[in-house]
Amino acid sequence: MDWDDSISLQRKEMNLDKYWFGVCHELSNNKLVSLLSLISSTIVSAKPYNIPSLGLSGGIFLKGGGTKTTKAAAQTNAETPKNDYEIFFYNQTLDHFSYTPESYTTFQQRYVINSKHWGGAKENAPIFVYLGAEDSLFDGDVADMSGGLLTENAPRFKALLVYIEHRFYGKSVPFVSFQNAIKNATLRGYFNSAQAIADYASVITYLKEKFSAHYSPVIVIGGSYGGMLATWFRLKYPHIALGALASSAPVLFFHGALPYNEYYAVVSKDFKQASKSCFHTIKNSWSEINKVASQPNGLSILSQRFKTCSPINGSEELKDFISGIFMDAAQYNSPPKYPVTMICRAIDRASNTTDILGRIFAGVVATNKTKECFDTRQNLTSGTESDGYAWQRCSELVGPFGERGDTMLERDNSTLSNFTNGCINSYGVPPRPHWITTYFGGKDIGLVLRRFGSNIIFSNGLKDPYSASGVLKDISDTILAIHTVNGSHCLDIVGASPNDPIWLVEQRKRELDVIEGWIKTYYADLSSFKKTK
Amino acid sequence: MDWDDSISLQRKEMNLDKYWFGVCHELSNNKLVSLLSLISSTIVSAKPYNIPSLGLSGGIFLKGGGTKTTKAAAQTNAETPKNDYEIFFYNQTLDHFSYTPESYTTFQQRYVINSKHWGGAKENAPIFVYLGAEDSLFDGDVADMSGGLLTENAPRFKALLVYIEHRFYGKSVPFVSFQNAIKNATLRGYFNSAQAIADYASVITYLKEKFSAHYSPVIVIGGSYGGMLATWFRLKYPHIALGALASSAPVLFFHGALPYNEYYAVVSKDFKQASKSCFHTIKNSWSEINKVASQPNGLSILSQRFKTCSPINGSEELKDFISGIFMDAAQYNSPPKYPVTMICRAIDRASNTTDILGRIFAGVVATNKTKECFDTRQNLTSGTESDGYAWQRCSELVGPFGERGDTMLERDNSTLSNFTNGCINSYGVPPRPHWITTYFGGKDIGLVLRRFGSNIIFSNGLKDPYSASGVLKDISDTILAIHTVNGSHCLDIVGASPNDPIWLVEQRKRELDVIEGWIKTYYADLSSFKKTK
Repeated sequence: MDWDDSISLQRKEMNLDKYWFGVCHELSNNKLVSLLSLISSTIVSAKPYNIPSLGLSGGIFLKGGGTKTTKAAAQTNAETPKNDYEIFFYNQTLDHFSYTPESYTTFQQRYVINSKHWGGAKENAPIFVYLGAEDSLFDGDVADMSGGLLTENAPRFKALLVYIEHRFYGKSVPFVSFQNAIKNATLRGYFNSAQAIADYASVITYLKEKFSAHYSPVIVIGGSYGGMLATWFRLKYPHIALGALASSAPVLFFHGALPYNEYYAVVSKDFKQASKSCFHTIKNSWSEINKVASQPNGLSILSQRFKTCSPINGSEELKDFISGIFMDAAQYNSPPKYPVTMICRAIDRASNTTDILGRIFAGVVATNKTKECFDTRQNLTSGTESDGYAWQRCSELVGPFGERGDTMLERDNSTLSNFTNGCINSYGVPPRPHWITTYFGGKDIGLVLRRFGSNIIFSNGLKDPYSASGVLKDISDTILAIHTVNGSHCLDIVGASPNDPIWLVEQRKRELDVIEGWIKTYYADLSSFKKTK
Repeated sequence: MDWDDSISLQRKEMNLDKYWFGVCHELSNNKLVSLLSLISSTIVSAKPYNIPSLGLSGGIFLKGGGTKTTKAAAQTNAETPKNDYEIFFYNQTLDHFSYTPESYTTFQQRYVINSKHWGGAKENAPIFVYLGAEDSLFDGDVADMSGGLLTENAPRFKALLVYIEHRFYGKSVPFVSFQNAIKNATLRGYFNSAQAIADYASVITYLKEKFSAHYSPVIVIGGSYGGMLATWFRLKYPHIALGALASSAPVLFFHGALPYNEYYAVVSKDFKQASKSCFHTIKNSWSEINKVASQPNGLSILSQRFKTCSPINGSEELKDFISGIFMDAAQYNSPPKYPVTMICRAIDRASNTTDILGRIFAGVVATNKTKECFDTRQNLTSGTESDGYAWQRCSELVGPFGERGDTMLERDNSTLSNFTNGCINSYGVPPRPHWITTYFGGKDIGLVLRRFGSNIIFSNGLKDPYSASGVLKDISDTILAIHTVNGSHCLDIVGASPNDPIWLVEQRKRELDVIEGWIKTYYADLSSFKKTK
């Protein structure tokens, strides 16, 4: 087995492919990290991976849930035709934080500009910068650029639109193919968040210089991991960005900021709120699955009952598949269809006609009624994004271990120790679990930022399990928490639709009004600053 | 000639040894960077270096001017006996900003703790952290720790005192001897300010954990380059430090923050304010020196007239020596002796009895009346500190080029281009002149920080030529400029003396009162934060 196969398998087992944030098709859960304890002895085994990808659920997670949806919507959006966008490449420094001979190497970083609505440098018109997260900026098409809150509102602000791709994703991979970059232990060492926001600082500084837009206020925006980047960018580079809109950014997710991983508790609460009986059915299903699995021919029975496309190799494979569906449903529990409600309605409806396994299966079917069978192994996405984010998780983006509260899922017994061992096995180096909180903070954020910093919106939807690691209380007059009770992951920053519920329309309106307020205050400051200069 | 000799010679010619900040024996001037244009062709020549070191002027630059003075004072200070200090070494990460296998290497970083006055973690008593700059923390003796504003006032605040050594200085050199570290192109790449403050973040985080002092407010302090580090630390790590006292920190010195290097203008103003005739004598002396030098036997005449210990090799050698004395006098123009006044008094008194060269010589003699001859080549310090700072200047700490205003010194014609060439010749890599302002900001600091950040004191003495690159206006209610008209470089943070002028006593008092206010506000915030948590 060569390096590629080995790392790929290990990652599957660690479920690293499944645990990213990202604006759109991001996923969740480190539950399966508990599997890490098994890794050393089972490197080449077919140990099932754990968390299903969004893709698995087909189109059910709907508008607002994914890049793909946004793209599809955008392709029919005549307001922002493709030719408003120009693609550029910036000569980016590989390592901003050292002066080794190697650090001077540069690579090509992709960014996109739409100046159609820009009021120009003379007016000091704003610049909206979308900070790329764990994904290609777009797949060879500018359609992605067309959706999104700030993009749609560029005319109101006369804003220049800039989209910058995150290093090592899309076309912004240094020097070699992504596959070669990620297996080069030295090169992938520079694939991290501090370098990424330093990239953004360099590109934006360059553009302000290029356009003589020295006094144009810059607003950075991002969702999920990108929302953390936006937060951190405003905090680390206040001289470059005036403010940040951080959507569904679990900035408190990292080891040391919060004692527990509340993700599972929110998933459970979402289901309990939709239906108590549904919650209890799910909660009781795991022991039932385990019981059946332990019987002679049990796995075969389970395969049959859940119409798996191929026989399952163990009960974990099935439980991971099912729990992944529930977690995705919670994270992307978006209007108009609200997947959690759909699943619970199906489960509850089946309660009189079938046993507990039949009810759970009815919930699974609700996510895709047209499928003839369910591929419990297809919940693993592959490609640059998942491979890249697997590395980011194993280096610095280390979440908390341990849970609390009443969960309907099987409890996560993973520990930092077995997670670390898995990472060492995969990459040769351990994660640095405390670095994110040392460099960016997080712990006691309400105390720290009460009198420090300004102009950050932390937007969340409380149905999103990541909202538990987000900022949900206003910290100061200008560091605000804007959340909705029924919103889901990144819902506010994807494109608007005529059918959006009023609370979503209001959340977006408030965010835009706040940003407008920042810009107005800045213009007043600028005017008095220039007078006294 | 081996690498050591080559680099050493080039550095001499570039005057890199002479241009650092640092709390105490720091020096100034990039005037001599103009020599860089000559470097390529004169690597092994004996081209004179340009700016005299403070050491050359012996004890004349007085109390408040240097480590040596502080140390001497401290050695007789019975209030803080040596055994209150404990020396530790922290296992520090070489590269905080990458995850390459090499980055995980650790080195031993030295720090010192004095807990004599500390109120303890239960009281959330404060922690004062002195951020080491371009120097050894001390020379095998804890005496250095005894002086200084926060050290002397630890009892008032019941503060824990922590002193952390800057990487690559003193005993905090990674792995090998300094001489071997600085000539290793890869290793020295990690010798920079971003890594240094990340080191401080790691050590302080570790200590707060170790002492369970999670809610003890941390105040960082530093002078000159150390003052910049303190400023940047508060801005980048607000979750670790509550506030910063940045003494004589030329945070606007870097390329892009201010258009001109105002250093020379302030030196000239200091002399003009002391005596107009003195100013004009100095201003006119350079052409006179040039005239004599161009005569047959002219250099010999100059050597004789200025009692140089050995014959000078050119007029530049002499002019550098003299202008270095004047610049040092301005930077360290401290009470009670005020070197600028001493020099000008001597120059003016000689006006009736001798020619212009004689008057200048009288000014030189005033700085050290006991010397039998003046060594125009001894103005080059050597050793770890100067070698280290030379590299820092050639990598990131790149000042502005070009001057304006009425200067009594010969105008500096150096450019970024010849400076860059010199650095490439010396180190194989060019400086990144824009990185400091990209990473830390600087330009329009009053606009940027007006509504961002808090709790920074920028203290300055306006006689200090570096004050022109400092913050001299209050930016907000908590980002304050506290300066004195007659103060000099770092004067406020060195140890107090019974003979200190009232304005200096008042400056220090105000600084301490402001810090006390930050801490009180923090305790109130902490109390309400804990209630709502």
